[in-house]
Amino acid sequence: MTTAARVLAFDVFGTVVDWHGSIVREVDRMKLAVDGDAFANAWRAGYQPAMAEVRKGQKAWTKIDVLHRMILDRILDEFGLNHSDEPTRQNLNRIWHRLAPWPDTVPGLLRLKQRFTIVTLSNGNLGLLSNMAKAAGLPWDLILSAEVFRHYKPDPETYLGIADVFDLAPQEIMLVAAHTDDLQAAQQCGLKTAYIHRPTEFGKQQLKAMPDVSGFDVSADSFTSLAAALGC
Amino acid sequence: MTTAARVLAFDVFGTVVDWHGSIVREVDRMKLAVDGDAFANAWRAGYQPAMAEVRKGQKAWTKIDVLHRMILDRILDEFGLNHSDEPTRQNLNRIWHRLAPWPDTVPGLLRLKQRFTIVTLSNGNLGLLSNMAKAAGLPWDLILSAEVFRHYKPDPETYLGIADVFDLAPQEIMLVAAHTDDLQAAQQCGLKTAYIHRPTEFGKQQLKAMPDVSGFDVSADSFTSLAAALGC
Repeated sequence: MTTAARVLAFDVFGTVVDWHGSIVREVDRMKLAVDGDAFANAWRAGYQPAMAEVRKGQKAWTKIDVLHRMILDRILDEFGLNHSDEPTRQNLNRIWHRLAPWPDTVPGLLRLKQRFTIVTLSNGNLGLLSNMAKAAGLPWDLILSAEVFRHYKPDPETYLGIADVFDLAPQEIMLVAAHTDDLQAAQQCGLKTAYIHRPTEFGKQQLKAMPDVSGFDVSADSFTSLAAALGC
Repeated sequence: MTTAARVLAFDVFGTVVDWHGSIVREVDRMKLAVDGDAFANAWRAGYQPAMAEVRKGQKAWTKIDVLHRMILDRILDEFGLNHSDEPTRQNLNRIWHRLAPWPDTVPGLLRLKQRFTIVTLSNGNLGLLSNMAKAAGLPWDLILSAEVFRHYKPDPETYLGIADVFDLAPQEIMLVAAHTDDLQAAQQCGLKTAYIHRPTEFGKQQLKAMPDVSGFDVSADSFTSLAAALGC
């Protein structure tokens, strides 16, 4: 018998919320003269390299809010919008605090919460995740962030940090994520893993193919399917 | 015009939950041959000295769960219960994870949450606070703990840490607490302050007198009164 998971830890950007669709909608609403689809993906593409500098110790600990803003300032130049004023830049950067959940997110979390402790494990900072949860009604039992551990995923300190917080063994934690690299890193730390397929994470023009998920404990196409798969 | 508070940060032990009454009830239920009132107060009395060692750097960062257990082992000796086995000790220590809220806590928080972001600022560790919130239905927007800041209250890093998390000025945060020393330390960091009178925090045998609260922004005898005072 394997030990059952007691805590479900959720990746957030792409897994819980639709960052691409939310940015496209807000950019359209603000009437920014830009291709929202390309703009959203360019912003997100700057994310891993920015975190990598922190992970390698080339940059001191820096919150995602600050990294998002650095990338934003660069892509506003690249998209010919370098005339954007400071309030516009601040408003754009706060889009990440009000990203919309996928339609199955809240009903799925409410079901899962009845049997499991549900927490975030996101590279997003605590203020961002808290504002997002309040706006979207995400019923977390605890918001955990790279900011708590002062390490970005996929550093092992993040996955093992959850086990330490709850005084549980790694195999009593299950990471839920739409990204195989995140899940593989969690698995190497001894966590259980659930892959969630979010084919439109990068928009309808760049559909994500179904990856090989045979190495993960569960695979589902929504949080409600995940709830069913876990017997909730 | 003074800046309005946007985030209410709550002290937890004594302010949100009735640690004394909860411990007395559980000790009675477990049929421990001990005066529950004296036992609860002895346990709590060990708390400040244990944290002081961490605050002064005499002891490395140590979670409250571990400090509670060290104090417990000592008082079990003092109360003639040194024969208590390991499962009993673990069960006793977990009482702090399932402390009961005061009757006004949940209705008050639900009202306050509509207008403010409501967070904890407790010396309790994240796992303890999260388990408590799940058991008691405490609707926090964010659980913040000394464990996040690696400093115990009343170190300024805790009060100023909330402002940093939300990217707000200290005067946009209000500390809500039943303890004047906690409120005074927050005030010195520029936070607003609300005193909550919990006369039976230490039991009915040791009623707390009303202190001088003239220096605080608000004083109330319950979270529902606080909600009314803040216009919720």
